[in-house]
Formats: sequence, C-alpha cells, structure tokens
Amino acid sequence: MNQERFDVLIDSIGRLARRGATAHALNILEKLRPVEVATVLKALQGRTRESTFAGLADRDPEKAAESLSELGPGFVRELLEPLSSDRTLELLALLSKDDAAVLVDVLPEPLRDQLLDRLQEEHARDVQELLNFETETAGRIMTPDFFALGEDVTVSEAITALQKRSEDLEMSFYVYVVDGRNHLLGVVNMRQLLLNSPSTPLRKFMSTDVIRVTTATDQEEVARLVANYNLIALPVVDAENRLVGIVTVDDIIDVIKEEATEDIYALAGVEADDRATGSSLQSIRSRLPWLLLSLGTAMLAAVVVNAFRDAIGHAIVLAVLMPVVLAMGGNAATQSMTVVVRSIGLDNLVWSVAARVILKESIVAALNGAVVGLIAGLSASVWFRNTRVGVVIAVALLLSTVVGGLVGALVPMVLKRMRIDPAIASSIFVTTVTVIVGLVIFLWAGRLLLAN
Amino acid sequence: MNQERFDVLIDSIGRLARRGATAHALNILEKLRPVEVATVLKALQGRTRESTFAGLADRDPEKAAESLSELGPGFVRELLEPLSSDRTLELLALLSKDDAAVLVDVLPEPLRDQLLDRLQEEHARDVQELLNFETETAGRIMTPDFFALGEDVTVSEAITALQKRSEDLEMSFYVYVVDGRNHLLGVVNMRQLLLNSPSTPLRKFMSTDVIRVTTATDQEEVARLVANYNLIALPVVDAENRLVGIVTVDDIIDVIKEEATEDIYALAGVEADDRATGSSLQSIRSRLPWLLLSLGTAMLAAVVVNAFRDAIGHAIVLAVLMPVVLAMGGNAATQSMTVVVRSIGLDNLVWSVAARVILKESIVAALNGAVVGLIAGLSASVWFRNTRVGVVIAVALLLSTVVGGLVGALVPMVLKRMRIDPAIASSIFVTTVTVIVGLVIFLWAGRLLLAN
Repeated sequence: MNQERFDVLIDSIGRLARRGATAHALNILEKLRPVEVATVLKALQGRTRESTFAGLADRDPEKAAESLSELGPGFVRELLEPLSSDRTLELLALLSKDDAAVLVDVLPEPLRDQLLDRLQEEHARDVQELLNFETETAGRIMTPDFFALGEDVTVSEAITALQKRSEDLEMSFYVYVVDGRNHLLGVVNMRQLLLNSPSTPLRKFMSTDVIRVTTATDQEEVARLVANYNLIALPVVDAENRLVGIVTVDDIIDVIKEEATEDIYALAGVEADDRATGSSLQSIRSRLPWLLLSLGTAMLAAVVVNAFRDAIGHAIVLAVLMPVVLAMGGNAATQSMTVVVRSIGLDNLVWSVAARVILKESIVAALNGAVVGLIAGLSASVWFRNTRVGVVIAVALLLSTVVGGLVGALVPMVLKRMRIDPAIASSIFVTTVTVIVGLVIFLWAGRLLLAN
Repeated sequence: MNQERFDVLIDSIGRLARRGATAHALNILEKLRPVEVATVLKALQGRTRESTFAGLADRDPEKAAESLSELGPGFVRELLEPLSSDRTLELLALLSKDDAAVLVDVLPEPLRDQLLDRLQEEHARDVQELLNFETETAGRIMTPDFFALGEDVTVSEAITALQKRSEDLEMSFYVYVVDGRNHLLGVVNMRQLLLNSPSTPLRKFMSTDVIRVTTATDQEEVARLVANYNLIALPVVDAENRLVGIVTVDDIIDVIKEEATEDIYALAGVEADDRATGSSLQSIRSRLPWLLLSLGTAMLAAVVVNAFRDAIGHAIVLAVLMPVVLAMGGNAATQSMTVVVRSIGLDNLVWSVAARVILKESIVAALNGAVVGLIAGLSASVWFRNTRVGVVIAVALLLSTVVGGLVGALVPMVLKRMRIDPAIASSIFVTTVTVIVGLVIFLWAGRLLLAN
C-alpha cells in the first residue's frame, strides 16, 4: 500500500473512531494485515488509538496480538494497561514466545508478574527464561521453538515428524541435527529433505560446519554473522553446545535497523527510544541531558573566548569571524567521526588498520583544510581589506580541520578498543576538543597579528 | 571469528605477503570463508591486496569470485583491472547474475563492454538486462534465477523438477506458481511441498495473496516490505504482472545497511561511498563540497555578526557568549531533525501526522529551551554580575531552541512530501536557519539591553 492511500485510510479511520463509529473503523482494520494495522494505529491520536485497539482485541484477538507485536514495545503499556488481564493473557498466548517476551518485558513489575503467573505454564516458563538473558544478546532475541532431530533419523521419518508439528514454527526452513543430549551436530535444509531418498539418515548429508552463537553473544555480532553468511536462521547454543533456540532473519532485520538508529541518534545526542510520533515527555527525557552536557562544553568555549576579550576589543573582526571557526572545525570532525563510527558498526573495523585509518583521515583533513582555509583567507582579506585577517582565519581553519580529522578518527577507534560504544561517547568529546583548539588557535593568532 | 583473532590473522598474512611468501598467505586464506577472506583483503595495504587477490584467483577462482562479491563494488576496479580478461571472465561466470551485474557495473566502459561481449551468451544477456534497470530499483537488485511452475503441476512433479535443477538457485525456499504466459498466480513454500500428498496440484494449496513488487519499485520500498512482512524472498514482476525475478532477504539486508549509511552520512555531509579504509582522494571528493557549502553559510553568519559590530564593541560579553548561542541552537535543531529523518526512513512517517509531529517537536523544544535558557541565564548573570547579560542569553537560547525544533521537524517532512530525500537536503538548511535566527535574536537583544 503506498503512502497516499495510507494517508487517506488513516484519515478516515481516525474520523470514524473519533465520531464513535468504531464498528465501521474495525471493519476496515479487519481487512488489513497486522503490519498495516500497526501503521494505522501508530498514526492515530492517543485516545483514539486506545479505543480502536481495545475494539480490535474484542473482535479479532489474533490480529490485535500480531499488530501489537508489530507496533513494538513502545506502545505496549499504553495499549495493554486499559485491557482486562484476561484479555491481555489471551493476546500474549497468541504470540510466539520471543515476541511475547519482548512485550511482557516493558510492562510494570506487578502486572508483569501477575501475567507470567497466569500465562499457561509451559508458555510462561519459556517467556520467563528468555527474560533471564541480558538484553541485546542472542538469548534474548532467540525463539525456543525450533525443529531438531537425531542424526540417525531418516528423511522419511523427518518428513513425518515435520508433518506432525508444523504450526508453531517460525520461518523453519532448517532441521537441526542433535545427539541424545541435545548437543548441536549439524543442520539440514528443507530442500535437502526433498532431494535425498526417503531411507537416507540425516547424518549422511547434514552439514556439520554449522555457524552458531551462544546465548551470551551480542545481538550486533549475531546480526553481522547472519548478514555476512547470508543465513535465514542461526542456531543458539548454551555454554555446553546444547541447542536452546534459533534467531531468525526477520528478527535480525529489526536488530540491524535498531543498531543503525542507535548510531544515528548517538551522533546527534538522542536516546534510542525517541520517536517522532512518541510522547513529548519521552523526547524531553531523551534529549535534555545531552543539551545540558553540551551547554557545559559551550560554556567552556565561552571561558576560552573570555580569556581573549582584550584582543577582541582591539579587533572586533575576531568576533565577526568566530562563527566561521566554530562551524568549520566541528564539521570536519563530524565528517571524519561519522565515517569511522559507521565503518566500525558495518565492517567491524579492526585495530590492525587503525594507524592507516588515522593517517588517511589526517591527510584528507589537511587537504580539505588547506582548500577551505585558502578560500576563507582570500575572502576575508578582500572583505576586510586586510591580509593579516586572511592569514589568521586561514591558519585557524587549516589547523582546526586537521585536529578535527585526527581526533574524529582517533577517538572512536580508541573507544572501540576500550569496548566503549564509539557512537555514544565520541560526538561530544570530539566536537568539544576541536572547537576549543580551533578557538584558541584563532584568537591567539588574532592577538598576535591583529591586536598589537 | 572474533576481532582479536582477525587482527592476528591480518597481521600475519600481511607480513607473509609483503615478504613475498604469497604461497603461505594463500594457504591460510584458502581455509577461510569468502566473507572472512574479504575482511582480510580489506585490511591489507593496496599493493599487498592486489597481489594476494591475484594469487587467490589463480589458485581458487571460486573463492576469489565470492570474496570479491563480498568486498563489494568499492574494490572491484582495483582488484580486477590488473588481472587478464580471461581470468576476470572466469571469476564473473562463477557468480550469480545479480552479483556479477553489481561488479561489472563499476568497471570502466571499454572493459565492461568487452567483458559482456565475451561472457557466456545467456549469462551475459541476463547481466546486461539487469544493468538496464535504474539503480536502486527492484529490477537492479533482483536475481533472474528463480523456480516457477504451472498451477496444475502436482507435488511429486514439483519435487522431481526441483531435483533436476537445484544448484544455481539462491535461497530458494519458495516455488512460484505462474500461468502459461508467466503471469504470477501464487506461491508455495518448501515445507508445504513436504506436507501435502504427492498427487495434489499446486493450485490447491498455493497462497494467492502474494506480496510482489515491480522492477521499477524503489529498493527502499522493497526493503520495507520484506522487513514488515517477514519475507525471505519477494517476487518481482514487470508491468504486465509477468514474473521476472526475485529479491532475496540477504540482498535486502545489504539495502537496509546501505540506506542507513546514507542517512547517517547525509546528516554529517559525507557521500555514501566514503569508507574509513578507502582512498584519500575519494574521501576528499566526498567531503569537500559540503565543507565549501558550509563555509558559505558560516560566512553568512559572519555577515550577520558584522552588522552588529558596534554593539559587540560596546559589550564584549556578546562575543564571549557567542559560542554558546551557536552551539545550542544547532544542537536542538539536529536532535529534532535526526529523529524526524529517521522516523521517515524507518516507519515511512505519513503526512497525515505531520501537524502532530511538528506540534510535539515544538513543545519539546520549548520546554528544553526553557530549562537550558534558565540555567545559562543564571550562570551568565552570576559570572558577569549582570542580570541583563543573563536575560539576553536566556531569551536567545529559548527562542533559538524553539526555532531549531520547529525547523528541524518541518523541513524533512516538507522535503519528503516534495519527494526530495530528507536526509540529504535537511541538514545544512536547518542548521543555517537556526544559527542565523539565534545570532540575530542574541545580538539584537544584546544591543537593546547591553550596548546602550
């Protein structure tokens, strides 16, 4: 469905729901797929969203459950808390265990425990177990529903087993092969079952070189493996190589998007849960801390300028050109930092190339700084009819660009080496250092050449 | 393989290759998977990379071809041009057609045509056809190798057909069902073939509600569909609904990463092909245009300050606090813009919520601006023992934060509506407007309250 049609749809459902014609709105929603329902719900206003969702949960619990899962944890509290706990239980029982775990996890403590108590025993145990793994690990994003057989099972026995339980398997195009104590031995894909004769045991054609992760593996590493080896599902084992779950490619796509969002947001000083259609309070909580930190570093820059107030008094041109110095050093640093942070995220940039990357970023910064400095210097000389002004701004831009490029490349690589997320920690540090160094060079050169 | 082991590996292969012990280096590389070989090659220095790749192409052409494909188009010219055209042809013929198309596309015109001329006829025609589609469309990223059967074909006939040709099918867990003229009618997955009796015709159990795209569909839209509907492959049809190819989830993962990189880079003013380990020249080409544009807007800010030089002469404190005004307005704008740009990229944010998003961003900016302004105002009052200084900076920060939030949300949404990529065009415009408005308010209030 394209955007224009969505706009029309959202508009009419919103209007119907607000006029109390919920039944009409639900008639339309029932015909959509869960992800489409999720998009519509997301666009509705708070009140209308709640009542529409409650209506849908009454009429078509399965679609309501799946739509909730598509909406993601951000909307769970808002939509589930108004429902009766019977209805909530019904919705959670309809979801796969990994999806249910994601949703239960964000509910407030008492409601969460109450739900886990009352959820069907086996289902609850699995959900509870998933919740015990650290967030952002393979254990947390895996599903415990997979299909595993012994190595002596034949193709025809495997097909019979598969026919018996096929409903609750997510994207199950693989059969995992395990020994009697559930240790992972190999993997067979559905196509191989079709291509081999019925009496062949799985061990004859299973692939034993299975890429696997443990429950503690970071989800970013899991995503990298799935992407690099073009996998559809990846088995997760415990510390003793016992198969405990699988991570499927659809979950990995969510991880990749989430990690990219975290990187983009971190560079701008925003928390990962900040959404354009989210609540204002959440956005304020997400952004204010960084603004305050940033105010602190800006004040530091003001202290630097204050130390040169006599020079500025003698040559107001220093104040006039200050915006140029502040903007350009920060820009070069941000470019360099962004490229290095992204290369770390995408290619898992390794420490052995660090020296080369830093050298290259310095060369790039030096050449770009020379061009920018030259142009700015000539413009300023002409504008103020004073060559010295041109020299001051040219030197300041050249040097602050070089410092920016160097620091922008160095800081994320060192942070990565120290196992600190380079995206989150780099931005404020890099721009502060660059801006302050740029200001000092500029004002110091200005005092030397212009204010005497 | 974890990062430390990779570092050691890269180090030893690099050392072996530089000492001319290429045979030893190749012995190690031969035991790695293509994606691992690619990671090693990427980390080697230019010369060493070329000679190592040439050696690998001699010894194990298939691994060389696949590693090249994993390396991506950025390294193709460098690695293929030194090879004989026979060797290059051999490598290309070993790749799937969509992967070959990606690589051939970046070669210089004469070599490219020569290769297409000599590539095995059918293979060349398919590659050529893929190249005829616009970049970043489904046509360009699809593979023409898929598995399609008629609707009256039975399960056992389908299995026989599948057994006959199974080698060159990428991730083929689906059988597409077409009519006599190749129009797409439905889809069946491998598991369904196992679960239905041998004599059942496909039409009995195929799913007819097939999500499909046309060759002209933008790759970003294709990625959204695959992600939202949890698909492993998506059929691509021409304007007459004839099946012409499939896009597989592994290609979609690449698209999602590429689009995220484009968004991150665009916000920092870097072109998509800029890599930490790439060439300096490419990085300069990628970054200098934006730096120059940015220099232009910074000069504009200098012109604004110049108009107030008398005020600054009377109250140097205006110069001292200028870095705070410049930093804070830009920060709030960047936060708001980043959240809106990412929401557009991820959730396909629709126009019907634009008013709500803009209202919300304004509220967030106003409250954040009030807090930041208050703190900055109090600090400045104490620092300079002058309440008027505090008032000037507080008002400037409050108003420029509000303007930043408003413009930061408004610009990307309007650009999206006008079908211009919001990530690329927003950044420079938003920060320039915010910074200039902030400066004018600050200096104007300063002249009024401090310089009289």
